[in-house]
Amino acid sequence: MAQRKIDVVVASVKRLIRVGASANLLNLLQKQHPADLAGVLGELPERVRQTAFDTLVERSPRHAMEALSELGPETGAHLLEGRSAEEIARYVQELESDDAAAIVEALPEELSRSVLDLMRGKQDTGVEELLEYPEHTAGRIMNPNVFALSEDLTVGEAITELQGARDVEMVFYLYTIDERNHLVGVTSLRRLLLVAPETPLKRIAGGEVLSVRVDTDQEEVARQVASYNLLAIPVVDLENKLAGVITVDDVIDVIKDEATEDIYRLAGVSSDDSVFSPPLSSLRKRLPWLYVNLATAFMAAAVVKLFESTISQATALAVFMPVVAGMGGNAGTQTLTVIVRGIALGELTFVNSKKALVKEALVGLGNGVGIGILAALAAWLVQGDAWLGLILALAMIINMFVAATAGTLVPLGLRALKIDPALASSVFITTLTDVFGFFAFLGLGHLFLKHLRVAG
Amino acid sequence: MAQRKIDVVVASVKRLIRVGASANLLNLLQKQHPADLAGVLGELPERVRQTAFDTLVERSPRHAMEALSELGPETGAHLLEGRSAEEIARYVQELESDDAAAIVEALPEELSRSVLDLMRGKQDTGVEELLEYPEHTAGRIMNPNVFALSEDLTVGEAITELQGARDVEMVFYLYTIDERNHLVGVTSLRRLLLVAPETPLKRIAGGEVLSVRVDTDQEEVARQVASYNLLAIPVVDLENKLAGVITVDDVIDVIKDEATEDIYRLAGVSSDDSVFSPPLSSLRKRLPWLYVNLATAFMAAAVVKLFESTISQATALAVFMPVVAGMGGNAGTQTLTVIVRGIALGELTFVNSKKALVKEALVGLGNGVGIGILAALAAWLVQGDAWLGLILALAMIINMFVAATAGTLVPLGLRALKIDPALASSVFITTLTDVFGFFAFLGLGHLFLKHLRVAG
Repeated sequence: MAQRKIDVVVASVKRLIRVGASANLLNLLQKQHPADLAGVLGELPERVRQTAFDTLVERSPRHAMEALSELGPETGAHLLEGRSAEEIARYVQELESDDAAAIVEALPEELSRSVLDLMRGKQDTGVEELLEYPEHTAGRIMNPNVFALSEDLTVGEAITELQGARDVEMVFYLYTIDERNHLVGVTSLRRLLLVAPETPLKRIAGGEVLSVRVDTDQEEVARQVASYNLLAIPVVDLENKLAGVITVDDVIDVIKDEATEDIYRLAGVSSDDSVFSPPLSSLRKRLPWLYVNLATAFMAAAVVKLFESTISQATALAVFMPVVAGMGGNAGTQTLTVIVRGIALGELTFVNSKKALVKEALVGLGNGVGIGILAALAAWLVQGDAWLGLILALAMIINMFVAATAGTLVPLGLRALKIDPALASSVFITTLTDVFGFFAFLGLGHLFLKHLRVAG
Repeated sequence: MAQRKIDVVVASVKRLIRVGASANLLNLLQKQHPADLAGVLGELPERVRQTAFDTLVERSPRHAMEALSELGPETGAHLLEGRSAEEIARYVQELESDDAAAIVEALPEELSRSVLDLMRGKQDTGVEELLEYPEHTAGRIMNPNVFALSEDLTVGEAITELQGARDVEMVFYLYTIDERNHLVGVTSLRRLLLVAPETPLKRIAGGEVLSVRVDTDQEEVARQVASYNLLAIPVVDLENKLAGVITVDDVIDVIKDEATEDIYRLAGVSSDDSVFSPPLSSLRKRLPWLYVNLATAFMAAAVVKLFESTISQATALAVFMPVVAGMGGNAGTQTLTVIVRGIALGELTFVNSKKALVKEALVGLGNGVGIGILAALAAWLVQGDAWLGLILALAMIINMFVAATAGTLVPLGLRALKIDPALASSVFITTLTDVFGFFAFLGLGHLFLKHLRVAG
């Protein structure tokens, strides 16, 4: 649904709540697709959102819960917090186990525990089992209600089974299992249609089955689904028994989350921060990163302090020193971003890293010459001091070369140490470009001080 | 395939090429899944990669071309450049039209034109039509070979048609059309299996069909497929006639590309730059952005210049001024990143932007106080000057508040002007935090100059 349509529904919801027309409100909400409803709820002010959700959930719990699930676990869980554990347990059972698990986990800790206790009492929902797998693993995001058939059936029998199947994940692939639940084959609905009903499933569901293990990292799951263009991938336990299935819509969520994580980490933002996290929570997550940066900023300041007497004799150095450091930081960030993204997309590996280093070093030199000359001319023009321009150009070239090589080596080095390169690289790079930038520029200024026009 | 397995194949390929065992090489390559083969080719040095590809493409053109397509259009096209237009035209016809179009477009301009001319001569491949749609639209990325059936068939007839279908996109949904090719309905293979063969298709393929138009932006296509959890979405022309289909694997590519674009733009890197772009091409793309930054760095330098005489009297100001500007830049980047990603993910809209602004302003003040106090104590300790610490703290608080509000308002403002907020925001923010940071700190230093310890 286009943004314009969502805006229209949002306006209607607000109006209907204002005039208290709850029957009309219910009717309007019931007509929306859960994904659209999530869009609408997301746009509503908090109190109105709660009223709209409450109105819908009493009458159409599945519909309301699906919308809530699309809103994302945090915002979604928030809409349930006012309710009793009994109500929540009843409502989340309307969802697929993987979605239910995500919501229950996002509830405040005590409430989450009570809900889980209640669910354990009832039939086996699979929610608790999922939460036993570590975060970011296949086991955590899979749906345990996977549709699988014995390899000993015929195609005709398989179709009959399929016709009776309820409450299983969107089916396109049909997995076959042996008598001990081991995953042994896969075929597609389309192939079922292409062969005679008496064909044994074994004959069309042979060959190697691509699968992941419950402990496979979700990023690796996404990589496999994306690179083999799959619609779903089966998940097996450590004994190759079929444990669940991960569908491509879940993979899309993983890809988005991982991209957000990379973008955030490059900027020193924690991955669970977001636009509408409460201010205190965002503050607590961002301050530590700023403290790290403050420490490095003081390191750079210490370099400047070394040259305090030089600066007092040629204050023009103070005017241009932030230009050298800042431009080095900008160029370093460019290199760093290309390298980090190249690693994330699997284009850059250790094998071809030398080639990347040579390339970035050349680009760094080129940038240094291109920027240095222009900056030198500008400084000469503004300050009327050719020596100052020369020093500025030299410092720029040195600093941009440092920026390019460090921007390549630091993320590769972090990766070799099994640290996420997106996490820590940017603070290293800006520190290096500040320290080297100030040192190169002020150091050259000190060497050629007698040629510079003195202050005053 | 795990990285370790890829490494093993890479080593074998290198060895087989070195000893000239081309039959064994061919055999090894043919055994790999195209996606794995792409992984292997990506790891090989350029000359070895060319030899491996050439060996495979002569014998198993489809297999080789599918791997080439998975490598991405740029790297892929590069492997074909040494060949004649005739050969290329023949090879790309092994691919789906959308993948073929992407490769042909990435060829050098003249070669690309010759290949298109040759393909036009042969049967209608759809490649040229696709290239007529603007970049980043649904028409450009769709597959025109969509499987659709007349709404007047029965389910049994539909299954017969399906059994005869060749060379159509992965089928899960079945689209129905009227006699003038208008898209009128959709059903799934699974539903075909659930009803009697004599059921009219019309009865199970009713209701509203979600579709996009050929001119819909690819980002909007991805948003719809992701939010409605679809496996494919039909594409219609301006008269609602069925023109093609976009499958979820193409949507995953779009989501990755758009994430890369956002990450790159935040760092001032052009979206077609990458780890292994030729150095000169990267340089040409990055220098303009650095020139923009240089201009803004000179604006900040101009502010420092205003206070040159103040600095000459209290050089400690020169030591700490980069700290104020840099920390403002870091905090501004945090806010900016959260806001830009919030806009990209659809969480932040104009309706709820006031709430985001208030939140970020509060976080900015909190950061300013938290960082300002620590920085002041450190400066006092290092420099033995309490007034300097006070000035530093005040300037930090002002600058972090500016960083937070600008980090929110600038991307929202750019979005209102229909400019990509990721593109231009970061240069605005660093300029603002530099200018305000220097101005606040040096301005306060000027006001309280008589309290500061003088230079020397």
